[in-house]
Amino acid sequence: MESKYVFSTDIEVRDYELDAEGIVNNANYLHYLEHTRHMFCQKVGFPFSQMREQGIDPVLRKVEIEYLVALLSGDVMTSCLYMERKGPRFIFHQDIFRKTDMQPVVKSLVTVVMLKDGAISRGDEIAEVFRNYL
Amino acid sequence: MESKYVFSTDIEVRDYELDAEGIVNNANYLHYLEHTRHMFCQKVGFPFSQMREQGIDPVLRKVEIEYLVALLSGDVMTSCLYMERKGPRFIFHQDIFRKTDMQPVVKSLVTVVMLKDGAISRGDEIAEVFRNYL
Amino acid sequence: MESKYVFSTDIEVRDYELDAEGIVNNANYLHYLEHTRHMFCQKVGFPFSQMREQGIDPVLRKVEIEYLVALLSGDVMTSCLYMERKGPRFIFHQDIFRKTDMQPVVKSLVTVVMLKDGAISRGDEIAEVFRNYL
Amino acid sequence: MESKYVFSTDIEVRDYELDAEGIVNNANYLHYLEHTRHMFCQKVGFPFSQMREQGIDPVLRKVEIEYLVALLSGDVMTSCLYMERKGPRFIFHQDIFRKTDMQPVVKSLVTVVMLKDGAISRGDEIAEVFRNYL
Repeated sequence: MESKYVFSTDIEVRDYELDAEGIVNNANYLHYLEHTRHMFCQKVGFPFSQMREQGIDPVLRKVEIEYLVALLSGDVMTSCLYMERKGPRFIFHQDIFRKTDMQPVVKSLVTVVMLKDGAISRGDEIAEVFRNYL
Repeated sequence: MESKYVFSTDIEVRDYELDAEGIVNNANYLHYLEHTRHMFCQKVGFPFSQMREQGIDPVLRKVEIEYLVALLSGDVMTSCLYMERKGPRFIFHQDIFRKTDMQPVVKSLVTVVMLKDGAISRGDEIAEVFRNYL
Repeated sequence: MESKYVFSTDIEVRDYELDAEGIVNNANYLHYLEHTRHMFCQKVGFPFSQMREQGIDPVLRKVEIEYLVALLSGDVMTSCLYMERKGPRFIFHQDIFRKTDMQPVVKSLVTVVMLKDGAISRGDEIAEVFRNYL
Repeated sequence: MESKYVFSTDIEVRDYELDAEGIVNNANYLHYLEHTRHMFCQKVGFPFSQMREQGIDPVLRKVEIEYLVALLSGDVMTSCLYMERKGPRFIFHQDIFRKTDMQPVVKSLVTVVMLKDGAISRGDEIAEVFRNYL
């Protein structure tokens, strides 16, 4: 595991995520990435439910994802991330590896902005929460 | 089409709904059934968004579904329903046919109760809305 | 845990499984049930991939599912099953509990038949595999 | 509609595609994009089922997607594409608009390569099929 990652979690492929090719359907990787970010926020102590209570709404702006190896039935992945801040944008670097051999499965960049009471915010509150991870 | 049905809508299979067997995954039929009920409520003039505004929350209690023929890539289905009321329960009889030959695909019974401001209601308001279809 | 169950597995709710009501969408429970059956077959030593290699194709015939409590973001479920054989039909009794308090979430009956090289089989080979669980 | 597009199809939002925010979940847009490509290939006369019979396997390499406006319950989208070839890579430019006002919803670039009997191919056969659209 490269040391740049600040969080990782294991996720099991569930057979209903396979498509007619017998491989995990491409859209499911966005689910895995989202699940990983939510797990990370929970670990940091600021789960999505709490964000919403405080009127903070993280909004996905952009995803760039490269598909390198297809996951199959029975596979377990290790989903890793680190993040950086660029002005109001939070960039999540999210990579997924096949757990058995740490073969890279997908590499991605996910850009999120924060709405505060419906308007784009500078994200300072969020940056404060994530200060140890930026 | 048997005359007992009060609503029908056509739905296209989308290839990502197939699973590794190359047939539509069983769970997707519950999506199709739900989509059909929502289309029906919209047609009746009482869409889900409006229910929620009025504090009415339809809650699924039970689904009984028989799988007769598998849908494949490229198939279009005709999804039909009629409903009856049994006390506080609304029973949707929902059948799906393959459009090309009207071969039965699934037959189902879906039981829904209505919460009004969080408590189970007798459903009289809803029965009033659906009076022409009961 | 009631002793009748022969298999159980824990499954985490993933946030993308919630719908606009903020609860797990009803169709996802069929995914959970399927995932549980697949885990069970794997544990028994006869995973789906191997069935297919041997020309055996388990086909879902019927699902009856009662929804008792809704799962929410962050919930973990314990998904349990036991099975019985009725002629060519294998009936899976599958119940899902909320892990924290073992509150019943769904109760279901899932009927499966076995195709062997495309034709309905008596399922004797499968019954042999599952003999310790029937 | 800008003239650069060579194909467009309308797709209805289905309510189960909404997430707990009440908007279409981000991963579903990859489903919409895939569905659009499949519809396009079908229209061109070279559906996926036929590709597979000929040993051709289109493999997704990369997706870049920008999220501009969120789709809601009841929305219909117009999903458009045009394509170009860069060596062995086929780049699909895929944009989705809200049908009512043609507001841009997502903009994306999708890179696909063709495997022929399991090995990366130059894609000449496919280029020939799509020659009127490149």
